[in-house]
Amino acid sequence: MSDVDAKELDRLLQQAFDTASKLYQERGFQRRVGFGKRPALVSVDLANAWTRPGNPFTCDQEKMDNEIIPGMQKLLKAFRAAGLPVIHVTTAYEITDRNAEFTDMGLWHNKIPVDVVNLKDTNLWAIDSRIAPIEGEYTLLKKRASAFHGTELGGILRAGGVDTILVTGVTACACVRQTVCDGLADGFRPIAVRDCIGDRVPGAVAWNLFDIDAKFGDVHSSDECVAYINGLAKASLAAE
Amino acid sequence: MSDVDAKELDRLLQQAFDTASKLYQERGFQRRVGFGKRPALVSVDLANAWTRPGNPFTCDQEKMDNEIIPGMQKLLKAFRAAGLPVIHVTTAYEITDRNAEFTDMGLWHNKIPVDVVNLKDTNLWAIDSRIAPIEGEYTLLKKRASAFHGTELGGILRAGGVDTILVTGVTACACVRQTVCDGLADGFRPIAVRDCIGDRVPGAVAWNLFDIDAKFGDVHSSDECVAYINGLAKASLAAE
Amino acid sequence: MSDVDAKELDRLLQQAFDTASKLYQERGFQRRVGFGKRPALVSVDLANAWTRPGNPFTCDQEKMDNEIIPGMQKLLKAFRAAGLPVIHVTTAYEITDRNAEFTDMGLWHNKIPVDVVNLKDTNLWAIDSRIAPIEGEYTLLKKRASAFHGTELGGILRAGGVDTILVTGVTACACVRQTVCDGLADGFRPIAVRDCIGDRVPGAVAWNLFDIDAKFGDVHSSDECVAYINGLAKASLAAE
Amino acid sequence: MSDVDAKELDRLLQQAFDTASKLYQERGFQRRVGFGKRPALVSVDLANAWTRPGNPFTCDQEKMDNEIIPGMQKLLKAFRAAGLPVIHVTTAYEITDRNAEFTDMGLWHNKIPVDVVNLKDTNLWAIDSRIAPIEGEYTLLKKRASAFHGTELGGILRAGGVDTILVTGVTACACVRQTVCDGLADGFRPIAVRDCIGDRVPGAVAWNLFDIDAKFGDVHSSDECVAYINGLAKASLAAE
Repeated sequence: MSDVDAKELDRLLQQAFDTASKLYQERGFQRRVGFGKRPALVSVDLANAWTRPGNPFTCDQEKMDNEIIPGMQKLLKAFRAAGLPVIHVTTAYEITDRNAEFTDMGLWHNKIPVDVVNLKDTNLWAIDSRIAPIEGEYTLLKKRASAFHGTELGGILRAGGVDTILVTGVTACACVRQTVCDGLADGFRPIAVRDCIGDRVPGAVAWNLFDIDAKFGDVHSSDECVAYINGLAKASLAAE
Repeated sequence: MSDVDAKELDRLLQQAFDTASKLYQERGFQRRVGFGKRPALVSVDLANAWTRPGNPFTCDQEKMDNEIIPGMQKLLKAFRAAGLPVIHVTTAYEITDRNAEFTDMGLWHNKIPVDVVNLKDTNLWAIDSRIAPIEGEYTLLKKRASAFHGTELGGILRAGGVDTILVTGVTACACVRQTVCDGLADGFRPIAVRDCIGDRVPGAVAWNLFDIDAKFGDVHSSDECVAYINGLAKASLAAE
Repeated sequence: MSDVDAKELDRLLQQAFDTASKLYQERGFQRRVGFGKRPALVSVDLANAWTRPGNPFTCDQEKMDNEIIPGMQKLLKAFRAAGLPVIHVTTAYEITDRNAEFTDMGLWHNKIPVDVVNLKDTNLWAIDSRIAPIEGEYTLLKKRASAFHGTELGGILRAGGVDTILVTGVTACACVRQTVCDGLADGFRPIAVRDCIGDRVPGAVAWNLFDIDAKFGDVHSSDECVAYINGLAKASLAAE
Repeated sequence: MSDVDAKELDRLLQQAFDTASKLYQERGFQRRVGFGKRPALVSVDLANAWTRPGNPFTCDQEKMDNEIIPGMQKLLKAFRAAGLPVIHVTTAYEITDRNAEFTDMGLWHNKIPVDVVNLKDTNLWAIDSRIAPIEGEYTLLKKRASAFHGTELGGILRAGGVDTILVTGVTACACVRQTVCDGLADGFRPIAVRDCIGDRVPGAVAWNLFDIDAKFGDVHSSDECVAYINGLAKASLAAE
């Protein structure tokens, strides 16, 4: 069994997406939800267990170091300059004994190695220092894939007047996708930031972003998102 | 732009899954959540708008007629014989004016054509007559992709002592996937019934079932599921 | 055992509220959440089983006919004139066999007679004809006390840009209170409309509105709410 | 304005409860939900800001020291001996600047002084040392009144096979009541432990426990709960 040829896979996936897009557009899918008036940045699981080497959760390091982290730095700069809300999401557990009859891992350790992310091992679930939270930014500690379902996120975003979420992080096929889908369900306009979303297996980013864009949120580059944020900031200054 | 070659796509996807599985297994993903003691059947959006031809939501008709409906009939027979809970899920909307400032479609009509499923057009969202609900089976009317997030489902399943959900229906990349992921998050063992899950674009079933099996629920055939249900029924008789 | 003297109870409760208010105000409770910019009317369980005589759920008829219904008529007129969202909430069940091992009543029929509100008996759970929904108003069918927890309400209100909920209906100590508390938690400014909230036992309205006002939402009269709505409508006209 | 006479208030409330109970029982309310097979202890906000003197959240100290803490110690002993799940719930915030445009307090600081419970001030929201968590017990950090709505609790309890929750803590009219009501909605049998539930204003415990018992959960003493837990443990030993 030899590994899949990444370029060949990409080429075939692109063909599949073209075929699907034709059907989707004929039928009225792939509409644009659009950017709203007050966005928040929701950055999912860009903590050391996912961003750094050597952990079962470690993601594709090339995209992480060359695209995701630099893209996030640009986004953070724009959000901070505009005084807009930033939420850093991470995941960790208190009772990580897989033989325990009760644990805050729920059933998830029966599918994936969440038992390695122990709450006491603070370095593991701390947000990567290259994009560390600053005063006034919220760090949400979740137990599930979604940043919305079974968390306080929807309530606090709404209380803060947010109508749009720019979603970044890892992984495309789990926590990012669930957050985008649930964000739309909870009434927010989800924008998936293409170059700031990673995974660890071939094709996962491409396929999941395609599904998201067809049905749950719009996919944009970090540059397009920064331009949007800067535009909001200018409009706000002009109005003062 | 020519359509993707389905066989070629399948071959490449299988290679991609093999490559991914190697990494996943080395790292402790793709674990088995397993069947529990008291299952419910959660059948998602097998209503006429999705199962029959001629609607924007119509799914792949070959799989629908030859695999999904016959598979569902086998599952329903087993669940009914065992006296186990069956939940039929469907989707429809009351305010489907896309220009309305307020609608129960939330923001979803900004991505997909949910505005065609009007609550008054009862035939559209009625469960397909080939697998129609009988007395004692619950029909859940949802507004979002997930059958759990923002619905009463988790609460009533728990109240009924259910620990396992067998998930069937359409589409793989939207409502089925969200239901499986949220089912695990809400504490249920999700089993995706491979031959009873459909979609409308090439590769969508394969890729989404691969992601589900890697991280959120186990994938089994309807025959394996029927054997499990029949086994429960026999064990229950033996215990009396 | 003789019935409580209603006037004497009111007098003592008022004393208790005065004592509590002193403590609350010294400590920083009883703050005002205030009216926001875009309200929705959330009218809870003003369906025939609750508003009309002869059902176990029937509420205090004097307040219903003389205050709640007339107050609701004024509110509906103002909301409709202003083109603001109205949500009518009701409650009914599909599987009402108390001996069933699985039912959409969950566990609630083990506390209260929800088994009388059968989905097939449409008259029971239809909104009272004196305040019937019109085109463009949403009727939410819930299974629990809260109109938010385990429903789509939070998501669709957010999607519609709503930041404030005016809550009316019955009963003060169950569905109304839960809706107010969960509304705040989900990020909306809850206003409990005093004269449009009823119950069926002595003291229940008074005590529950006191708790709400101290911690979860502001209590106002329907006249104050109508003035607020009319003010919004005028401001909106002036801005055009 | 003189303070209410506590004895006189209790006497009148008891009369009101008798009158209400007559109506409730005639109509089929005040049913028993009963104890189930696998309980968890859900102890709400028994952290220093609530259990110790000198904080705006400080509760009635006499009941705290003489009934709630000793009752909790008995319950913890029984749960630990039986190896049953214990969840300690507490509340604290990261962004407690009341002028911030975005905060994890949502809108709640517009009603009550949650801005005093800063996440950095760990002593404030630490569970009272007299009933401190031990290894294997979960501490849930919430942002809202309810321990269920907007948290992971329902999912992890269900994953752990729990069907019953014994609820203790403070305050009766806010976090305890919301937790009981949402627990039932999420499919768990709620038992409110009378002598382990406190508040800070006259009548609040009595009225809220009456409402709970009428509609949402059964009210029992800590001794009755300990007897139930010990009975489960014995039954379990006998079965081995």
